[in-house]
Amino acid sequence: MAVVLGQNNYGKSRVRLVQVTRHKDRHDMKELDVAIQVQGDFTAAHTKGDNAKVLPTDTMKNTVYALAQGDPVVDPEAFALKLSAHFLDTQAHISEARVEVREHLWKRIAVNGKPHRHSFLSTGDERRVGIATRSRASVAVEGGIDGLLVLKTTGSAFAGYIKDRYTTLPETDDRIFSTVVASRWRYAIPDSDFGVLWREIRRITLETFAEHNSQSVQQTVYLTGKLVLDTFDAISEIRFSLPNKHCLLVNLAPLGLENHNEIFVPTDEPYGLIEATIKRT
Amino acid sequence: MAVVLGQNNYGKSRVRLVQVTRHKDRHDMKELDVAIQVQGDFTAAHTKGDNAKVLPTDTMKNTVYALAQGDPVVDPEAFALKLSAHFLDTQAHISEARVEVREHLWKRIAVNGKPHRHSFLSTGDERRVGIATRSRASVAVEGGIDGLLVLKTTGSAFAGYIKDRYTTLPETDDRIFSTVVASRWRYAIPDSDFGVLWREIRRITLETFAEHNSQSVQQTVYLTGKLVLDTFDAISEIRFSLPNKHCLLVNLAPLGLENHNEIFVPTDEPYGLIEATIKRT
Amino acid sequence: MAVVLGQNNYGKSRVRLVQVTRHKDRHDMKELDVAIQVQGDFTAAHTKGDNAKVLPTDTMKNTVYALAQGDPVVDPEAFALKLSAHFLDTQAHISEARVEVREHLWKRIAVNGKPHRHSFLSTGDERRVGIATRSRASVAVEGGIDGLLVLKTTGSAFAGYIKDRYTTLPETDDRIFSTVVASRWRYAIPDSDFGVLWREIRRITLETFAEHNSQSVQQTVYLTGKLVLDTFDAISEIRFSLPNKHCLLVNLAPLGLENHNEIFVPTDEPYGLIEATIKRT
Amino acid sequence: MAVVLGQNNYGKSRVRLVQVTRHKDRHDMKELDVAIQVQGDFTAAHTKGDNAKVLPTDTMKNTVYALAQGDPVVDPEAFALKLSAHFLDTQAHISEARVEVREHLWKRIAVNGKPHRHSFLSTGDERRVGIATRSRASVAVEGGIDGLLVLKTTGSAFAGYIKDRYTTLPETDDRIFSTVVASRWRYAIPDSDFGVLWREIRRITLETFAEHNSQSVQQTVYLTGKLVLDTFDAISEIRFSLPNKHCLLVNLAPLGLENHNEIFVPTDEPYGLIEATIKRT
Repeated sequence: MAVVLGQNNYGKSRVRLVQVTRHKDRHDMKELDVAIQVQGDFTAAHTKGDNAKVLPTDTMKNTVYALAQGDPVVDPEAFALKLSAHFLDTQAHISEARVEVREHLWKRIAVNGKPHRHSFLSTGDERRVGIATRSRASVAVEGGIDGLLVLKTTGSAFAGYIKDRYTTLPETDDRIFSTVVASRWRYAIPDSDFGVLWREIRRITLETFAEHNSQSVQQTVYLTGKLVLDTFDAISEIRFSLPNKHCLLVNLAPLGLENHNEIFVPTDEPYGLIEATIKRT
Repeated sequence: MAVVLGQNNYGKSRVRLVQVTRHKDRHDMKELDVAIQVQGDFTAAHTKGDNAKVLPTDTMKNTVYALAQGDPVVDPEAFALKLSAHFLDTQAHISEARVEVREHLWKRIAVNGKPHRHSFLSTGDERRVGIATRSRASVAVEGGIDGLLVLKTTGSAFAGYIKDRYTTLPETDDRIFSTVVASRWRYAIPDSDFGVLWREIRRITLETFAEHNSQSVQQTVYLTGKLVLDTFDAISEIRFSLPNKHCLLVNLAPLGLENHNEIFVPTDEPYGLIEATIKRT
Repeated sequence: MAVVLGQNNYGKSRVRLVQVTRHKDRHDMKELDVAIQVQGDFTAAHTKGDNAKVLPTDTMKNTVYALAQGDPVVDPEAFALKLSAHFLDTQAHISEARVEVREHLWKRIAVNGKPHRHSFLSTGDERRVGIATRSRASVAVEGGIDGLLVLKTTGSAFAGYIKDRYTTLPETDDRIFSTVVASRWRYAIPDSDFGVLWREIRRITLETFAEHNSQSVQQTVYLTGKLVLDTFDAISEIRFSLPNKHCLLVNLAPLGLENHNEIFVPTDEPYGLIEATIKRT
Repeated sequence: MAVVLGQNNYGKSRVRLVQVTRHKDRHDMKELDVAIQVQGDFTAAHTKGDNAKVLPTDTMKNTVYALAQGDPVVDPEAFALKLSAHFLDTQAHISEARVEVREHLWKRIAVNGKPHRHSFLSTGDERRVGIATRSRASVAVEGGIDGLLVLKTTGSAFAGYIKDRYTTLPETDDRIFSTVVASRWRYAIPDSDFGVLWREIRRITLETFAEHNSQSVQQTVYLTGKLVLDTFDAISEIRFSLPNKHCLLVNLAPLGLENHNEIFVPTDEPYGLIEATIKRT
C-alpha cells in the first residue's frame, strides 16, 4: 500500500486585534482574536517542498488587519464571513477556508453613574464566537459562547441513576450546579441578525439555567437547546459542551460540626463533561 | 561559620470554599480561596525532624471550613482576622499568622430584568482581597484588588522621556492605555468598614483611570493613590503593581493602507511593570 | 420541523492517578490522567430528566481506580482498551466508549550516576497518549505524543511562496524552526506492541526534525509521517498538529548593531498551525 | 499628614531572547527571559507627569538585545550583572537596578545516539535563574532553580504532629512526597563559578531528596540547605519555597478492593507550602 497525504489544512491562530472607532462623542472598541485555516491543493508543498501554492500564514495575519481597517467589526460572524470570502476569492487553489473570530467582551466604565466615552472594563473570560466555514459550493455560519461561568445554589438534583459495584455517589435532591457554558449554534441562513440572536440565546441560556428545576446537566442542556430552536427559526442546530464544576459538600462531622448544605469545596478536576446537539428533524 | 535556620514559615494555600447562606427569599453565595502562613518555633522540625510543634497544613484547611460554618463571611478582611486570631489563640508557639482571603466575584443572573434568588454569574478574573498579618504584639489588615482589567482608547500620552542609543520608541500624545490593576491598601485601624472602603477605592481607581489625562502609568498610579488617601483617613497606605498591557499600532503602510490610530495588536509580553506605594508622612 | 436530540456523549475528564508498583529492589511509578466519554441510549435523560440509564461520571472515576488496582498500567493504550471494554461489557445501553489515557513522563533521579530505586524527576510537559474508541462492532486504538517541544537553529528555509498585496514576510533560506509536536497514530491491529512503537515513532519524529533540510513545516510533517508508515506495517495512519513557534530575528540596525542571525525573539502568538494526515491508499 | 510617594520601581518583564552561537561544527543555543526593575529619582514622573528622568521600558527591552549581541550568554547571573551595570553606568539618577534572568533548559536531540549539532529538545518547565541587584554601594548576586518537579514513592513519613479538634489527617510512616523545588542562593562573592555551583546545588538537591529519609518537608529542606552551605563556601545563604504536591491514597474499600499503598490521586489544590532560609551565623 502506498503512503499518501490525507486531510490537511494550515493557517494562523491567535491573530489579536484591538479596533478603535473614534466617533465625535465617544469611542467604540472591539477586542478580537482570529484563527484561520485553509484547505486546498497543497500536495506539492508536503511531498516536494514546493511552496508555489502556499499563502504564508504571516500574510493571513496581515489580511486580518487589512480587512479590519476602515470597516469596524460589529459581529464576529460577519468578520469571519468577510475573511473567508477573501481567501477563496483571491486564491483559486484554496477549496475551503474556516475562520473563527472570538470577541473578548468589554463594557464602559461608569463615571458618576454614566458610561464613559472612551474607557472600558473587561467583563471576564466569556467570549462571543463567530465562525464561517466556506467552500466553493457553500458557506456555514456559526455563532457561539465560550467561558460563561454560572452557579446555582439550589434547583438541581441528581438521583435515580444506575448503581453498580463501583458506585459511591449518594443521590441528592438539592445540590449546587455550576458550569462553564460553551455553545455553538448554526444559522439557517448566512445573513441572520447575528447580534440580536447572540444576545437572545445568551439570555435564554442564563434564564433557563436559573429557573429550570434540573434533574441532570443533560436535561438542562436539552431544554435550553429546545427553547432556542423553538424561539428562533433562524437557528437550525445548537451544540453544548458543559463541564460539571463540582462543588463537594464538606464533611464537617469529624470536626464536631454539622454542615447544613452550606459549606462546599469547588473543584477543577476531575470533572464531568456533558455534550449534546439539539437540532431539527 | 555555623549553618543555621533563618526566616521560615509554612502553611496551606488554595483552600477553596463556596459558602451558601439560605435565606427564605433568596440565597447568598461567596466563593473564596484562602492561604495561611505561620511563623514560630519550628526549629526542631527543621533540624531534628521533630514534628511535636507542627500543626499540619491539613488541619489549617479544616479550620477554614470549621470557622466558616455557621458564620457567613461578609468581608475577606474579617475572615482573615478571625482565622489569624484562631491560630495565635490556640497555638502558643506560633508567633505570627498571615492569612490571605481572595474573593471570586459573582453577581446574580437577571431573569426578566430582576436579580435571581439563587443563580449567579461570574464577573471574571477580578478578585477582592483581604489580608491579616497578626503577631503577638499587633495586627495589620490590608484590603486589595487583583485582576481588574481596564483599557482606555485615548487620554494617555508618553513623551519627554530619556533617549539613549538604544531608544527606538516614538513619542506619542495619544496612545491606548491598558492595565490589570493589582492594589493593596493598609487600614489605619483593624475594624474599618471594609466593604464600603473596597467599593469606594475600586470606584476611585476606575474613575481616575477613565478621567485622568495620563502622562505615564506612574502619574496615574500616584494620582489614584493620592485621591484614595485624601478621601479616606481610614487608609494609611496604598500600593499598586500595574503591568502595561501594550497595544501596538499596526504598521499598515506596507499593505498600502493608512492606520488612523484605529488598528492595534494587544500583546502579553514583554510588558512594562510599574509599582509604587503612596503613603502618609 | 420538530426539535430532536442529536449527537450526545458524556463522561469524566481529568481523572488523575499515580500508580506505584513496589518491587523488592525498586519501585515503579506511573502518572496518568484519564478522560472517558460514552454514547448510547440517553434520550430519556435529556428529554425527561429520567436518569435510569445514566451511569454517574463519579462512578466512571471510581472505575479508573478499581481497574488500575492490582494490575499495573504499562501502556496507556492497553489501559484505555481495558476501561472501554468494561463500560461496554457492564452497560448494555452504552453503544460506544472512548477512553483517552495521558501519561505524564518521569525518569529516575540519578544518585552517584545510578538510577534511584524510588525517586523520580519529571521530564516536562510531554505526554504519551493512548486512546481506545470501542463500539459494539469494532475498536480503534490510537497512540500519540503531545507537548514535545523542539527547536533547530538551521536547516529550515521558507521561500518560493505566493506573494499578494498583503505579503510582507521576507523569504529566507535559513530560519529557526521550533514547534510542539502533537501526533496521533492509528494501529492497524488493536494488540500491537504499543511501547516499542511509541518509542520508535518518537525517535523517528525527533531524528527527522533534526536531520531534514526543511522547506516548510508541511514538508517535514509529511516526511515524518511517510517514514513512520514505511517503517511500521502496524501503523495505518498518522496525524500531526504543529504550531509554528516563531522566533523572529530582532532588527538591531536602529541600535547601530548588526544581527548575524543570532538574536531572536521567541513568540507565542500569533502562530502558524499546520495539520496533516499521512495514510495508506 | 501629607501624602507622599513611597517605595517605587518600574521596568520591563518577560523580555524573551533566543541566542544562537554558530560554531563551525555545531550551534549553541540559549533561551532566556529577562525582567528588569529600577529604582531612583522618579518623583517628578509620579507627581508632575514629568518624564525627563524616565528611561522607557521599551528601551530596556532593546538594551537586552543590544547587550546580548556579539557576547554569548553563558551564565544567567553574569548577564544579569552586565545588564544591571549598564543601567547604573548610563543613568546617573538610577540608584538600584534588579535584573532577573531565567534560562529555559534545552538539550541536544540524539541522532544515532549522538548529540545533534543544531537541533534541541526542551527539558520542561525547570528554569535556571540568575539575579543581580545592584546599587551604587554594592551588588548582590543570586542563583536559583524554579520548576524542578520531583516525586518519591517512599522514604517519607509525617507523624508526631499536633492534634487539635480540627485534625483529621492520619499519621503515616510511608507516604508519597512530591514537590516543585524553587530555590534561591546568594553568592558570597559576585564572581563565583556560577555554572559549576548551579549544577552542584541541583545535584545535591536531587540526591538529598532521593536519599533522605524524610520526617517532613521542613526537615528535607533544612538538610538540603545545610549540605549546600557545608559544601560550598561560595554560597552564603539559600532559600527554598516548596509546595507539597499531595498524592492522596484512594479509599478503595467502598469498591470492595484493598489499596496496598499503590493507587493515589495527585492533587493541585489545596497545597501545603513550606518556606525556609538556611544561612551562616
